[in-house]
Amino acid sequence: MTYGVAMMLNAGMIFASDSRTNAGVDHVASFRKMRLFVVEGNRVIVVLSSGNLSITQGALNLLEAGKTTESGHTIWNLNSMFQAAQLLGDALREVRERDAGYLVQANVESFASFVIGGQVQDERQRLFHIYSEGNFIEATSETPYFQIGEIKYGKPIIDRVITSRTSLMDAAKCVLVSFDSTMRSNVSVGLPIDLLVYENDSLFVGLQRRIVEGDPYFSRVHKMWGEGVRRVFSELPNPHWDD
Amino acid sequence: MTYGVAMMLNAGMIFASDSRTNAGVDHVASFRKMRLFVVEGNRVIVVLSSGNLSITQGALNLLEAGKTTESGHTIWNLNSMFQAAQLLGDALREVRERDAGYLVQANVESFASFVIGGQVQDERQRLFHIYSEGNFIEATSETPYFQIGEIKYGKPIIDRVITSRTSLMDAAKCVLVSFDSTMRSNVSVGLPIDLLVYENDSLFVGLQRRIVEGDPYFSRVHKMWGEGVRRVFSELPNPHWDD
Repeated sequence: MTYGVAMMLNAGMIFASDSRTNAGVDHVASFRKMRLFVVEGNRVIVVLSSGNLSITQGALNLLEAGKTTESGHTIWNLNSMFQAAQLLGDALREVRERDAGYLVQANVESFASFVIGGQVQDERQRLFHIYSEGNFIEATSETPYFQIGEIKYGKPIIDRVITSRTSLMDAAKCVLVSFDSTMRSNVSVGLPIDLLVYENDSLFVGLQRRIVEGDPYFSRVHKMWGEGVRRVFSELPNPHWDD
Repeated sequence: MTYGVAMMLNAGMIFASDSRTNAGVDHVASFRKMRLFVVEGNRVIVVLSSGNLSITQGALNLLEAGKTTESGHTIWNLNSMFQAAQLLGDALREVRERDAGYLVQANVESFASFVIGGQVQDERQRLFHIYSEGNFIEATSETPYFQIGEIKYGKPIIDRVITSRTSLMDAAKCVLVSFDSTMRSNVSVGLPIDLLVYENDSLFVGLQRRIVEGDPYFSRVHKMWGEGVRRVFSELPNPHWDD
């Protein structure tokens, strides 16, 4: 499985994804599930992938190989994030049309989805969730984040903490706590975590970090969060249900 | 949807389930999803239901109507929890055989599952999870709990807190926190919550309580937990990622 989350806040955007891939328990490997299309000062486009790895890689490779929109633009010179989402949705449809029939014969899922976000030229920052069928939705200030993959374990902390006004630092912390909860309850999501922070209107990648096993900061967050949650739990009052 | 959880601890057992049922957004209703078969001093059998309500009610009604095991016992005089799980699995198969074909024609899922636990006569307390196909697994001391329905949002707190040695009071608190997280992230799970506490070897129902909207204790847990988690979050150190 996969866990990926992207947030669009007033201050900028956060992207994070795990990198565990498995095709059966005897074939667990690590693949980067975050792909960047960056021209500094012009565009920062970040894609998180979930689902069948051959399908998601295939779609992204089409983008890299110069697939064009109806208006003839590639990922490198299109002029809105909406076009970028359309292009990736089209690429996903193209790969699934080619491969899904063969996969079905072997009872293999061709399911795949993406989160794509960033900023292009003088457009505002935007964030989209592309479904397996190639259609997509856009994040708004009321729902400023998207998750893909194994999303439920790590959702409560995001719902409790994140609003559009959350700082990038707090959002990055929240993302790590969300991953920590997910990895605790689901072994198929694992380190390393790719984390990227984008400052609104900067048009370059602010911070990009790969968090590996033994990362001192992540280990500290893991420990403090676990202890803190258990402390809060132990401080809850007992019920008085004698009636 | 549904959320239900049952725990088997050294001290006894906890059962809890929500009671929201929906067949489309214009048909949301409240149905008890916890059913008891109790003869004080002889047996306490508790069933939590998830899935198609007509299927789960149908299976339980067969038990109440006197369906028998291969050895000719009903739910009221069988002599092990294993037999009870078998009987309920058989009842589920019988109802699905009768109804599933008609439901499929209307594109309606006949999926259903149960958690069944308790204690019969001088046998030890036991807990089973019955799948939609009627087969089942039993809880052990390493995995002392089962969840059904919308299980993932509320799983991290259980994984952090519960072991076989947890007290019944702490387990009841943990269950309420787990429901609180689930209801915060998923509107299809809602109050009232049915909660039942069974003390090991007692052979009667220790505590049974329906937690409704505005319940003072649950409201207090909800508030203290939310504030506590946000406080722990705010105390996490900031990363130093200047390198």
